[in-house]
Amino acid sequence: MATPINPALAVRDQFPAIPRDWHYLDSAATAQKPQAVIDAIANAYGRDYATVHRGVYERSASMTQSFEAARAAAATLIGGREEEVVFTRGATEAINLVAQRYRNGNRSRVLLSALEHHSNIVPWQLAGYELDVVPLTSDGRIDLDAAEQMASEEHALVSFAHVSNVLGSILDTARAAQIAHNVGATLMLDGCQAAPRLPVDIAAIDCDFYAFSAHKVYGPTGIGALWAKAEILNAMPPWQGGGAMIDRVTFEKTTYLPAPARFEAGTPHIVGAVGFHAAIDWVRAIGLDALHAHESALVAECRAALRSVAGVTLFGPEESAGIVSFALDGVHPHDIGTILDDAGVAVRAGHHCAQPLMDLLGVPATARASFAAHSDASDIEALVQGLHKVKRIFG
Amino acid sequence: MATPINPALAVRDQFPAIPRDWHYLDSAATAQKPQAVIDAIANAYGRDYATVHRGVYERSASMTQSFEAARAAAATLIGGREEEVVFTRGATEAINLVAQRYRNGNRSRVLLSALEHHSNIVPWQLAGYELDVVPLTSDGRIDLDAAEQMASEEHALVSFAHVSNVLGSILDTARAAQIAHNVGATLMLDGCQAAPRLPVDIAAIDCDFYAFSAHKVYGPTGIGALWAKAEILNAMPPWQGGGAMIDRVTFEKTTYLPAPARFEAGTPHIVGAVGFHAAIDWVRAIGLDALHAHESALVAECRAALRSVAGVTLFGPEESAGIVSFALDGVHPHDIGTILDDAGVAVRAGHHCAQPLMDLLGVPATARASFAAHSDASDIEALVQGLHKVKRIFG
Repeated sequence: MATPINPALAVRDQFPAIPRDWHYLDSAATAQKPQAVIDAIANAYGRDYATVHRGVYERSASMTQSFEAARAAAATLIGGREEEVVFTRGATEAINLVAQRYRNGNRSRVLLSALEHHSNIVPWQLAGYELDVVPLTSDGRIDLDAAEQMASEEHALVSFAHVSNVLGSILDTARAAQIAHNVGATLMLDGCQAAPRLPVDIAAIDCDFYAFSAHKVYGPTGIGALWAKAEILNAMPPWQGGGAMIDRVTFEKTTYLPAPARFEAGTPHIVGAVGFHAAIDWVRAIGLDALHAHESALVAECRAALRSVAGVTLFGPEESAGIVSFALDGVHPHDIGTILDDAGVAVRAGHHCAQPLMDLLGVPATARASFAAHSDASDIEALVQGLHKVKRIFG
Repeated sequence: MATPINPALAVRDQFPAIPRDWHYLDSAATAQKPQAVIDAIANAYGRDYATVHRGVYERSASMTQSFEAARAAAATLIGGREEEVVFTRGATEAINLVAQRYRNGNRSRVLLSALEHHSNIVPWQLAGYELDVVPLTSDGRIDLDAAEQMASEEHALVSFAHVSNVLGSILDTARAAQIAHNVGATLMLDGCQAAPRLPVDIAAIDCDFYAFSAHKVYGPTGIGALWAKAEILNAMPPWQGGGAMIDRVTFEKTTYLPAPARFEAGTPHIVGAVGFHAAIDWVRAIGLDALHAHESALVAECRAALRSVAGVTLFGPEESAGIVSFALDGVHPHDIGTILDDAGVAVRAGHHCAQPLMDLLGVPATARASFAAHSDASDIEALVQGLHKVKRIFG
């Protein structure tokens, strides 16, 4: 194995599901889990387990504290307050919740960009919004000059990916907030790819909604967070009904708790929250600045290495957050993925749930390598060697 | 420890979170987990982890198979087919999905009962339905004679708890189906308490929707299942949008996959499904007939033992499924729960997310003991001894 780019990030041994001879370059789809997260989950089920918010016995009170501490941790990760964090199944549900329950007067349009993930397109369509689509710069960033021209008082929201899941492009979030607020729109950020890769401070950004998923931040599946400004969240009516979100139920009339409880119907993903907390602690112990520097160095090294392979086309900006999409002349990305798999390299090949972006790039799919804390130069070497194998096979 | 009522159910040692000196009688809130389930979850994160439905590499294909095998297992548990099972966060989300997306012509009323959990009341209110409420028999079962009189062609659905979470009352499901179908209504069953306690065969019942949660069937938190007849499910429009539920996305028009994928937006609770599968295998290895017999014997023994304590009032029918609600003269259930906790006995004390039923019973709350596979006579002995302690303290 090559030396890690940042020795402080020699954490690969903490990931039991990554064997030495396997090169996992699909962290943008879902992150592998450090042992500390797996242990937290196993202990939550095998030692501390109880329901939350209800039991009068000590074990339940203790689990409730753990559950609410996880909410505080999720808030802290992005610089928010715990009463502004709603636990959802993931970022997708977070965006759907906003699309289905937030209203900005009678405004009926949403301003998106051409690089959005389906989860930041389809929820708005299903909720009945009309979409306006900001184009990209030539290197694959959201064109904020164009956005500024397009934003109008018809827009209820501006909703952008903080980091593109295909291109790794990083949004100038403060300018996006200014553009949205100048026309009275709120700013929603899809933080799925940013939360594990960049320091995020929603107060500095001045955004209104921020969504992210635990499973991409080295945490468990089935849980994520919607952060929203308290006054916005409390003005939103409930979405799903059930236990734990009500104040008083009669068959004639039901009253609801304030946010965030109002939006958390039913027994929550208790152990998911505990695992999420462990993952956030793990990430913060390394530090998002260090992670971003580590992944930026890997991206630079990867792009340089891929350029040395004849026939490779690179997509996206030079400075991206941990994600490199590419194509190889005459080979379908699916075939790239399959042959790389034989060579012990796991990349994503497909439309990355961003079909409109594929249409814009003029390709059916791309191959994508994405990095994480455990990635190192050996992964890039294996990728390049694998691509040479692809080229030999496809002659 | 006393001898288990059914020696085949000497499974307590398989539950690492239940110490020898702790008597967990809150399985109706959430079940403790056998080691087999915890191991399945730890292996899914620590050995086999990958995303599903997307990766072209072997690990992802293998995890996709595991994920879909879990769907088949969830279907098998209740006698259904896998293409009729939608994974949800839990039973609460399952009912909300039906309330928000199923339509039965222009019918605008739902027929419920007075013993329903909030999760089978509030979703219908939020979706704009008018509610009609079937009364209970004197021993706390849904009065199906009354239901038959009340059901009309204004009812879109009849939605009942298969087993009451407060009283343990078991519904005559076949008759409920007949009553619903006679007026052209569909039958939804809240199977939260039934799935872990009774053999369920949705074909024999002839119901239309069935909802249950993994965490009550000895499985993980954050996942559950909505089963629905295929023709009903496929006629329902999508609810949440995102990745994995689409056919083709453009900014102008998006088309959707058939059910169940249509209702599963975003990265699913992958490891939740794997753990759910392990839990279903564990339950089926014991057998639902054996579990029901075991819990019925415990209920009979518990009711007899509680009757021996002066001042105890028992609620619900004699023959209930694993759940006994009670009160003690002059002592608030919350105080019962707190003192029992000191005695190492965990019961639920509260309104059990069934405030209308509390109103009907004329109490603010009850104490509730609920049983599971690991329960035995020692738990009942500890409960009764604890109640004598409560009585000494309240003199």
